[in-house]
Amino acid sequence: MATKPANRRGPRADRQTLKADILVAARKVFAESGYQAATIKAIATEAEVDTKLIHYYFGSKAELFNYCIDEIFQSMGFIDYLKDALETGNTGEIYVRVILESIENNYFGPALLSLLRSIGTHEESRQLFNDFIVRNIVQKVIQQSPDPGLAIKLPLVGSQMLGLVIARYILEVPTIKMLSVDQLAQLVGPTIDRYLSLEF
Amino acid sequence: MATKPANRRGPRADRQTLKADILVAARKVFAESGYQAATIKAIATEAEVDTKLIHYYFGSKAELFNYCIDEIFQSMGFIDYLKDALETGNTGEIYVRVILESIENNYFGPALLSLLRSIGTHEESRQLFNDFIVRNIVQKVIQQSPDPGLAIKLPLVGSQMLGLVIARYILEVPTIKMLSVDQLAQLVGPTIDRYLSLEF
Repeated sequence: MATKPANRRGPRADRQTLKADILVAARKVFAESGYQAATIKAIATEAEVDTKLIHYYFGSKAELFNYCIDEIFQSMGFIDYLKDALETGNTGEIYVRVILESIENNYFGPALLSLLRSIGTHEESRQLFNDFIVRNIVQKVIQQSPDPGLAIKLPLVGSQMLGLVIARYILEVPTIKMLSVDQLAQLVGPTIDRYLSLEF
Repeated sequence: MATKPANRRGPRADRQTLKADILVAARKVFAESGYQAATIKAIATEAEVDTKLIHYYFGSKAELFNYCIDEIFQSMGFIDYLKDALETGNTGEIYVRVILESIENNYFGPALLSLLRSIGTHEESRQLFNDFIVRNIVQKVIQQSPDPGLAIKLPLVGSQMLGLVIARYILEVPTIKMLSVDQLAQLVGPTIDRYLSLEF
């Protein structure tokens, strides 16, 4: 299918509108096709713009993907919950709930899960996933807290969350899939609290 | 490459020797190529037997794979450790150590990790992995213990172990990769103990 000229929608399509349209299209294509199968061309077709415009505003497919998932993730206020968890030492339950609810979000979840599905077989996906976690969680938490022990605590928290997410949404382990988000938060929350309260 | 006739090595190659040779070859090919890429033909070439003989003794590639990893896993005495963990309620540390050491075993580890790498992108691998866990761990533990709460406890234990294994060997999260097996066992063991001691 031929790409369409950039000015197809006429002079009203100014720079901000175009960027917003591209992002809406990108979220849809990433959510539906997954990171690995999504193409800039498919996103351009969905947004009714030229592929060159996407590269001009957002760079490579990886950069556009990072921009999309970071924006959705940050809009969820996740980092504020994690900050609370670190301050009170008693909110692992909230933390688990927010992560699972984020993944059940219509745009963010499918895009992130598609990336997670490919970490074992696609090196670019493995790196993008690791970078997402470091950029959106590890670096922000470390900025807020001077605790050097976080270099061990956060990866331990991550190991439990990673396993829970993969068991529920990818392996689809029946029990983990059937429990509600609240039940899982109550069961797994204390694990997160314990890791965050370890002394190093 | 042409497969070789089954009687290539003459009359000394009796049924048990042939089966043992096929298993040695299968473990090597599964460990080197991974489950998804491994073929019965490559295993036949490695074992210097005809592919028909492999199908005759072991059935499909999936059945041969299950036979190989179950045999290695069971030879490690893993289930005895898990039984101890359930009885004393205080051996999560041993449990974590034995799982990580199993994966660092030359044959079992690469074969299991190759399967785990593909769970997100290859439905047959996802099912084989789930079946392996159910057949070798869940069913055996449930046979030994009448506790109905295990239906929730074991998947929770599994979620932590799964995440730890993926973080260490697949995502290669630096901290989780660099800590020793003993250090990880000490840090994560209490999580396992807590899940196993939950009351339902």
